[in-house]
Formats: sequence, C-alpha cells, structure tokens
Amino acid sequence: MSDDDVPARRVPTRPTIRDVARLAEVSVGTASKALGDSGKLRPETRARVRAIAKQIGFRPNDLAHSLHRGQSQTIGVISTDSFGRFTMPIMEGLEACLSEQRISVIMCNATDDPEREARHVETLLGKRVDGIVVTARRADQRPPLAVDTLGLPLLYVFSRTEDPGALCLVPDDEAGARLATMHLLRLGRRRLAHITGPEHFEAVRLRRLGFSAALREHGLDPAAAPVLAGVWSEAWGREALDRLLASASAPDAIFCGSDLIARGVIDRLRERGIESPSTVSVVGFDNWGIIAEATRPPLTTIDMNLRQLGYEAGRCLIELIGGASLEGLRRMPCSLIVRESCGAQRVT
Amino acid sequence: MSDDDVPARRVPTRPTIRDVARLAEVSVGTASKALGDSGKLRPETRARVRAIAKQIGFRPNDLAHSLHRGQSQTIGVISTDSFGRFTMPIMEGLEACLSEQRISVIMCNATDDPEREARHVETLLGKRVDGIVVTARRADQRPPLAVDTLGLPLLYVFSRTEDPGALCLVPDDEAGARLATMHLLRLGRRRLAHITGPEHFEAVRLRRLGFSAALREHGLDPAAAPVLAGVWSEAWGREALDRLLASASAPDAIFCGSDLIARGVIDRLRERGIESPSTVSVVGFDNWGIIAEATRPPLTTIDMNLRQLGYEAGRCLIELIGGASLEGLRRMPCSLIVRESCGAQRVT
Repeated sequence: MSDDDVPARRVPTRPTIRDVARLAEVSVGTASKALGDSGKLRPETRARVRAIAKQIGFRPNDLAHSLHRGQSQTIGVISTDSFGRFTMPIMEGLEACLSEQRISVIMCNATDDPEREARHVETLLGKRVDGIVVTARRADQRPPLAVDTLGLPLLYVFSRTEDPGALCLVPDDEAGARLATMHLLRLGRRRLAHITGPEHFEAVRLRRLGFSAALREHGLDPAAAPVLAGVWSEAWGREALDRLLASASAPDAIFCGSDLIARGVIDRLRERGIESPSTVSVVGFDNWGIIAEATRPPLTTIDMNLRQLGYEAGRCLIELIGGASLEGLRRMPCSLIVRESCGAQRVT
Repeated sequence: MSDDDVPARRVPTRPTIRDVARLAEVSVGTASKALGDSGKLRPETRARVRAIAKQIGFRPNDLAHSLHRGQSQTIGVISTDSFGRFTMPIMEGLEACLSEQRISVIMCNATDDPEREARHVETLLGKRVDGIVVTARRADQRPPLAVDTLGLPLLYVFSRTEDPGALCLVPDDEAGARLATMHLLRLGRRRLAHITGPEHFEAVRLRRLGFSAALREHGLDPAAAPVLAGVWSEAWGREALDRLLASASAPDAIFCGSDLIARGVIDRLRERGIESPSTVSVVGFDNWGIIAEATRPPLTTIDMNLRQLGYEAGRCLIELIGGASLEGLRRMPCSLIVRESCGAQRVT
C-alpha cells in the first residue's frame, strides 16, 4: 500500500493506522488490535489508542485496508422491534439490496435495552462491519446509538434520532394520509371522519395533518370533520364507529389510521346493517395483507412500501461506505392500494 | 499449537490443515486460502484442495484454528420464508440463545431459489461461519443444502430434509392436535369436527392424526367425525362451517387447523346467531396473537412455541460447533393456550 512510502503529513488527509500508532506510541499491530477489539491488550492501551483514533478522525475503513483484507462485506442491523412485522419487510429489502453486492447482514435484536444494544454494537465493531443500520418499533425519535462507532457509516430506518447529522429514512405518513383522503374526496365523499391510534405517536399526528390538508384543499373545514384517537386495534375501530353513528351527522367515508382499526370499522358496519362501501367508504393504512385482504369487502389502504424503504436504506448505506456524505431526515413515498372498501373500481 | 509437534498419523484423529496441505501437495497457506474461499488461487488448485479436504473429513473448525484466529463467532441462517411470520419468532429465539454466547447471526433470504441459496452458502463459507441453520416456509421436506459445506455444523429448523443424518427440529404437530382435541373432549364435547388446510402439507396430515388419536382414546369413532380440508384462510373457515351446518348432525366442537380458519368459523357462527362457545366450542392452531386475541370470543389455540424452537436450534448448533454428534428428526412440544372460545375458564 502507498501508505508505506508516504510519511505522515500535516496537510488534511485521511488519517491512517500508522498515524494512530505513531501518536499512541504503539506498533501498528497493537493499534489494529486496540481498534478492532481483537487480541489481548491492556485495557489502558486499548483506551489510549481508541481515544487518539477518535481525536484524529481515523475510520475503520482505513483499519480494514491496514489489515490488508479490505472491507468485511458485512453490515449490522440493530433492531428494537424484535423481528416484528414492520422490521421484517424492511430487512427483506435491505438484504435484497446488499446481497446483490455480496454484503451480508448480521441481525441484532436490542429490544429497547440500551446495555444490550451497546453490547451488540461492540460485537459488530469486533467483526469489522462496514456499516450499521438502526431500526425501531415505530418511526418515532430514539436517542442516537449510545456507542462510539468511530465514524462508521450509520443510518436509521423506520426510526428517527435527535442527532440532526444522522441519516434517517421514514415513510411519509402525512403524504400517505393525504393520498387516502384525496381518494375519498375524488369519489365524491364529503362527510369524512378519521379514526386513528394513540396521539403520542408521531405517525398519528402526521396522518391527521395529511387528512386535514386534503380536506382544506377541497374547500372543506377540517375542524368540522370528526377525529377519534384511540388504540391500534379492531375493538377500537368498532367502538369508535358506534360513537360516530351516535352523533348528529353520520359520515359517508372513514379514513382509518391502521388496517386493524379499519377492519373493526367494517365489521361493525356490517353488524349494524350498513352497507360498505355503498353507504360508507373505508380506507385503511398499512396494507397488511393478512388483514386487508381478509376484510369483507377487501380493504383499500395505504402501503408504506417498507420493502422499498429497506432497499433504499441498503442503497444509502453502500453510498456511505463508499465515502458519500448523506444526512438528514428523508420521508419516502407511500402508495394507495385500491381494493373494494372505498367504492372505487378495483384497479390492481 | 500442538499440531506443529505431531506428525501426521494413521490413527483415527481429527484431520488438520497440514494433512490437507500435504496430501494436496500445496503449502498450508494455499490450503487455507482454497478452503476459506479467500485469496487468489487457480480454480483447479482450489478444487483439488477441497476434494482432499472432503475426502479426509477436514472441518472448517480446524481451519479456523489453523488461521490462529479461533472460531468466527458468527453463524448463518438460510431462510426460504422471506422473513415471514413463522421465521420471525424462530429467528428471535435463535438470536437470543446465540447472542448470550456472543455469536452473531447473518440472515440470508434464499426465497426458494436454489442458485441464490448456493450463492448465500458460498458467502457464508467465505466469512468462516461456525455453522449454518436452514429454515423454511413450512415444516415439509426440502432437499438438503445443495452446497458442499465441508462438514460445517448444520441443522434444519421448522424444516425437514431427506438426509436421515441431518438434525431437524420441527414442532410436534400431531401431539399439538391431540392436546387441542383432548381439551375439547374433557370439556364434555362429543360431536367433534376438524376444519383444516391443504392435505399436501405434512402438518395437515399430522394434525389430523392427532385429532383421530384423541377421539379413539375417548372411545369415539374417528371415521364418524367430519374432516374438511381446504385452504389456510378465514374465508375457508366460513365456507366449511356453512357446509358442516348443512349436514345431518351439527358439531358441538370444532378443532381448526389454523387460527385464521378458526376466526372464519367463529365469525360465521356469530353471523348465523349460534353462540360460541356455549353451543359450539372452537380451538385453533398457531396462537397468532393478532388473530387469536382479536377474535370474538378470544381464541383457545395451540402454540407451536416457535421462539423456544429457535432457542433450541441455537443450543443444538452450539453443541454441534463444540463437536457433539446430533442427528435425526426431533419434534418439539406444543402448548395449549386457553382463552374463551373453547368454553373453559380462562387459565392464563
């Protein structure tokens, strides 16, 4: 490698393992071990080398090159969603993207436990992963990864962090809700209601904003449209529908914050002898196949395109590993999936 | 290492990389590269070294020791279930078990494509994984992993292969079905029916056997009990119930082959004004929370304990990596989860 021929310079250049070793007064081999979490070293030596590496901005990519074995072609995923239903399609897209480049994915389940998460990150660093993807149960804010990853490429997907420099990919909940609401308005519905989940979810607040924005664009007063926030369940969908029907003006369309809520709404409409979609149109949010397809009638709903979100995360991570500088919050588009519960022709 | 002091012997002992190198007439370094899929080598050299390694039963564990870096503390999972709902809890249990030993899990999605699967295995071998777990969409037979893994520890979970020497862990479908049926019989039900999925599934055939065995044990004639095989859906549950009720003797209990089928059955009972569980008891199979808990009344069902199955797979893999010899088909116990649809007191 050319590093062997070039003395350490003062001009701004990418620091090498030799720079770290020189400043820490250890051999290059010892510096490698200290940074790579391998081999036996005194803890104070390891700590000193790491502190210097951090100080001069040394990155593990350089380490990998120094070790004459290139990149590890492995990345880690830290999830707090315990392999849940949102994580799985994201993982599937991520793995599809990365396996095209023969990059392998190590899956770590942190289950909201910061100590467990820190241990996982240490393990991943020990394996010289080329990057880390963090994913969480919901698209709400989480603290940044509480471990010093020495500048390793890192991004958050279906998860946001307070660190404004972090790259975060999330579905565009507001635009998705706008899409659903516009669809109902274009079908001629005018007395819209929104039944949704707990207000402490950012997704709930954003979907409500999208609902209101679409009404306003059609010259309707959002303040006049009932919004019922509860929990993410079928039972809440049934209960909320009963409340709506007990009020003065019955809705002719209901935009639901999730497919489970929509299923509860549609079941109760049927039980009360109200025809859906002819009397009341219903649109859900999630496109969760097992629910959306089994609902009677099958559910028109919003798809967050989680597989594509995961694929995009893989693409971004490859760019980051290649040295690109990507940052900030990116909201990825949702799609409308038209089935029968809205009253439009099925177009799929 | 002691290998340096001991000449190659004829007595049965664990072959080392030195044995492979000597027989292939290459250096130890070349043999390592050839077996580890790293470095640049002529394909015929690689092939010759691999053939000899296979012939003398050389295992990658030895390779890892030869490389003076011990085990990689990484294992691979090859799934054909695209991160589906059965794989998720298995993965969760597997990761929980292995992360206790600081062993990381690389997740590969083979999606039933043998070429893709072979590429994944090659990648895993290149990463010096300590073992491989294969999991599939259903507990039916699949061909053995179509790649020479040089004796790497390997097991199948929620999946079976024709190779009688392979270690396969699957849920005990027959015993699970027996448990469900015995429960209904103990509650005093006598006119039992079974509504289930497609007969080409081994799980369907085994669950039916368990259903029949329990009836026989209670002195009832299994041939007199209606069995309706269809598909894994709510719609089939509704349709099958309609057929049962149109026949001469209506059942007082229905054991369903899946929770989705059970949900369809219970929805239709309610729609037809038949009380469940007082008139007809229903038991499902899967304990799929989102379905079982939302059914009205909540579903009594069989849990395949998939998380424990994954944990047990991790435990077995650690034993295999440690040199243990485990083989054959192991059927792991299912549990009865009592909710309300059977008519028993809720005991959870």
